[in-house]
Amino acid sequence: MPVVRIQMYAGRTKEQKAELAKAITEAVVRIAKAPPEQTWVVFEDVPRENWAIAGVLASERS
Amino acid sequence: MPVVRIQMYAGRTKEQKAELAKAITEAVVRIAKAPPEQTWVVFEDVPRENWAIAGVLASERS
Amino acid sequence: MPVVRIQMYAGRTKEQKAELAKAITEAVVRIAKAPPEQTWVVFEDVPRENWAIAGVLASERS
Amino acid sequence: MPVVRIQMYAGRTKEQKAELAKAITEAVVRIAKAPPEQTWVVFEDVPRENWAIAGVLASERS
Amino acid sequence: MPVVRIQMYAGRTKEQKAELAKAITEAVVRIAKAPPEQTWVVFEDVPRENWAIAGVLASERS
Amino acid sequence: MPVVRIQMYAGRTKEQKAELAKAITEAVVRIAKAPPEQTWVVFEDVPRENWAIAGVLASERS
Repeated sequence: MPVVRIQMYAGRTKEQKAELAKAITEAVVRIAKAPPEQTWVVFEDVPRENWAIAGVLASERS
Repeated sequence: MPVVRIQMYAGRTKEQKAELAKAITEAVVRIAKAPPEQTWVVFEDVPRENWAIAGVLASERS
Repeated sequence: MPVVRIQMYAGRTKEQKAELAKAITEAVVRIAKAPPEQTWVVFEDVPRENWAIAGVLASERS
Repeated sequence: MPVVRIQMYAGRTKEQKAELAKAITEAVVRIAKAPPEQTWVVFEDVPRENWAIAGVLASERS
Repeated sequence: MPVVRIQMYAGRTKEQKAELAKAITEAVVRIAKAPPEQTWVVFEDVPRENWAIAGVLASERS
Repeated sequence: MPVVRIQMYAGRTKEQKAELAKAITEAVVRIAKAPPEQTWVVFEDVPRENWAIAGVLASERS
């Protein structure tokens, strides 16, 4: 444990994911006292046509 | 808040997703008194070969 | 299939959940053409101290 | 109910998923006394560049 | 990796969970060739009043 | 968007959650260029008897 799942719009680069995973893991290890090897971060890329806010798909927003 | 996640077989059209997101958001706003802008709906398309019922992948069912 | 999961603040009544489940299921059955018996809705109640927006726990917001 | 979700690296074959779904469903039915038709298994394939352990993406590990 | 999450009605005993976790892990290790120490199983107990099938909460079904 | 969900053993204090939410949100806003108000962090506390590693519940490990 812990498992951190991040759902966000698809389109982030591998470099952004690498940097995010590093920063989040450091925070979890430092603050929650979790062992680094047991801190997992999983990115779930969501296309804009699969994400609605206020009832409108993000792909349809102007 | 709230976040609504919908896992279903891949293959629904963007029009179906748009209509579903609208109907579900209206229900959440009306019944749970959530602010529309803070009601998110996320579709997670699942291929039939990734979904099993009674131990059999949906892609293998006749 | 489909499975609809709803994460929102704890505190909704059983009546609100019953009404929400009914309305969401009707929308999924009508729009996504899913069989009613295979449309599941799962509520995940989240305490306000477990939900942060803009980096601040909802329980700490004024 | 129950819904079993399995996140793992993409790359397993359909045969492996079929075998896994069968074995897991048998265990759930036998041990948790769930009806087979109401035991669902969903695979969520995760690319290695979307999964970090100890702050490093699996795609970057040697 | 892998992470297996199981949502089912609350009420299973610790003995049932222990047996299920053992059986599922054995299946994942054997079939998906995952290392045992990196195979995690997480149970998410759902009260019957939080789970609807066909639009009706399980707690309301006769 | 984005939604960050963190599953970890129950037992972290509200102070730890507040600090974690702040650090993770800052990382997501800085690296993924997400708007702060649309960056949500949800903690899902998991009892040790609901989490197995290598087929053994954490509550049973010595």
